[in-house]
Amino acid sequence: MTLERCLAAWRETIDAALEEALAPAGGAPVRLVEAMRYAVFSGGKRMRPALALAACEAVGAPAARAVPFGCALELIHTYSLVHDDLPAMDDDELRRGRPTLHVVFGEALAILAGDALLTEAFRLAATAGRAHGLDPADALAIIGVLAEAAGAAGMVGGQVLDLDAAGRPADLALVEAIHRRKTAALIAGAVEVGARAGGAPETARAALAAYGRALGLAFQIADDVLDATAPTSVTGKREGGDAALGKATYPAVLGVDGARRAARALLAECHAALAPLGSAAERLRSLASFVVERAG
Amino acid sequence: MTLERCLAAWRETIDAALEEALAPAGGAPVRLVEAMRYAVFSGGKRMRPALALAACEAVGAPAARAVPFGCALELIHTYSLVHDDLPAMDDDELRRGRPTLHVVFGEALAILAGDALLTEAFRLAATAGRAHGLDPADALAIIGVLAEAAGAAGMVGGQVLDLDAAGRPADLALVEAIHRRKTAALIAGAVEVGARAGGAPETARAALAAYGRALGLAFQIADDVLDATAPTSVTGKREGGDAALGKATYPAVLGVDGARRAARALLAECHAALAPLGSAAERLRSLASFVVERAG
Repeated sequence: MTLERCLAAWRETIDAALEEALAPAGGAPVRLVEAMRYAVFSGGKRMRPALALAACEAVGAPAARAVPFGCALELIHTYSLVHDDLPAMDDDELRRGRPTLHVVFGEALAILAGDALLTEAFRLAATAGRAHGLDPADALAIIGVLAEAAGAAGMVGGQVLDLDAAGRPADLALVEAIHRRKTAALIAGAVEVGARAGGAPETARAALAAYGRALGLAFQIADDVLDATAPTSVTGKREGGDAALGKATYPAVLGVDGARRAARALLAECHAALAPLGSAAERLRSLASFVVERAG
Repeated sequence: MTLERCLAAWRETIDAALEEALAPAGGAPVRLVEAMRYAVFSGGKRMRPALALAACEAVGAPAARAVPFGCALELIHTYSLVHDDLPAMDDDELRRGRPTLHVVFGEALAILAGDALLTEAFRLAATAGRAHGLDPADALAIIGVLAEAAGAAGMVGGQVLDLDAAGRPADLALVEAIHRRKTAALIAGAVEVGARAGGAPETARAALAAYGRALGLAFQIADDVLDATAPTSVTGKREGGDAALGKATYPAVLGVDGARRAARALLAECHAALAPLGSAAERLRSLASFVVERAG
């Protein structure tokens, strides 16, 4: 199966599972569920779930084992976009080509829908950990990985550094400090979550962790390059949004060509890290290439 | 030991554990940790942790088993206060007699510190579940209880209903629907978390669940009555804040005396629910009386 077909199939699987998790039922207010669904079903590529599923397969387990945790990753990613777009943060009115959540539902509901998505991620992971034939201790470890990647030393911390840095002169060390936390932590977390869902032994986990760390940064560099070079019709975001906000990005400190070179160097790191896993990691190799080659 | 002494001792234990969890270290930005600590160490009564510890003791286990989960409850409670106070929500400038987090640290950091506190709650629970000699399956169940109580069908859902109801005519059914979710869910969750941390058998869990449900509502009614009758020097909040915001409260639909009667009826429910647990539940009985009697 080509990577494109595989990604499309996984995307369908993840979307069906998210559909079930976010079904309008139970005690949640209708309007809140609508807001959560608006954010989640907006054409995201489901890259983080795909990485978890691919890592799970790479260690010899069926991808299905990682599905609920892939959903948790996607909910965490989605909540972070909703909160990042808020007027008090990046004040973005466009996301994936549509008005952002707070534009449609108001600021209060956007904050609360984000809160609910984050909470739902952990509910889903805890439920899956109990129902899924997984060792409960592994499920706890996965929840720990999710929280570590998403929290104060990870994604949230990265957003704090990012806001602090806006409009100030940035150097490579600062840009890397921001993006290691803001994006790379959850990408690396996705790989680790998949490896643990698949019951990976310690050596495979270490190889996948090195892959995840390199890929996380490569992913963000590719995103920065796209933001700096592609029109809104491609990114679905305000054109040149990062530069307009004075954001600390890789193209800002390395130039577009320098940023592309850095991404390709990280791609080589990804491939090197996967060597011990042999042909089982083929999907992870092509995913890494896919991510980096978006940026040309 | 009197209830007051016991609460003071538990508070010290919880604060020491929170101090450790929120130590300024690791990869979290300094300013973010400062904001999280500002919110957490602001003189809260630690009632939710106390309920978890008391429930754990009531089923014959040492209170220490519930400490990390008590901390998780307190972090969730604290994040909810930070987000509720935001300009887009209740727009409160005073909390526990001090300026609210967004007044001191700005709105962006208040949103992010809230996000980080919520995430940290789950990290703490997942870590404790692995390190603590607890059955990992019980730890997963506890994480599920926390997420359910805090999420779209619980606390966040209650805040959505609360915002929707502000300034509109309220009846008892609406007020109860709001407060069952907004406050009672996490109070009941605290009792359930403690029971599970203590390894309670099914019958004890059911008795404690009934206690938690009645206490959760009683707690909110007592809070509403205090808000309506006590000066800022007692509540630490803007005087008559609920009425000024047109909030749906028990005194607004039942009058102050009617609300006090409702709280006392729920207190009787709490005591009845605990009957099967005998003298082991003495601390939970006095906690319930303490909560309701605040409101006179």
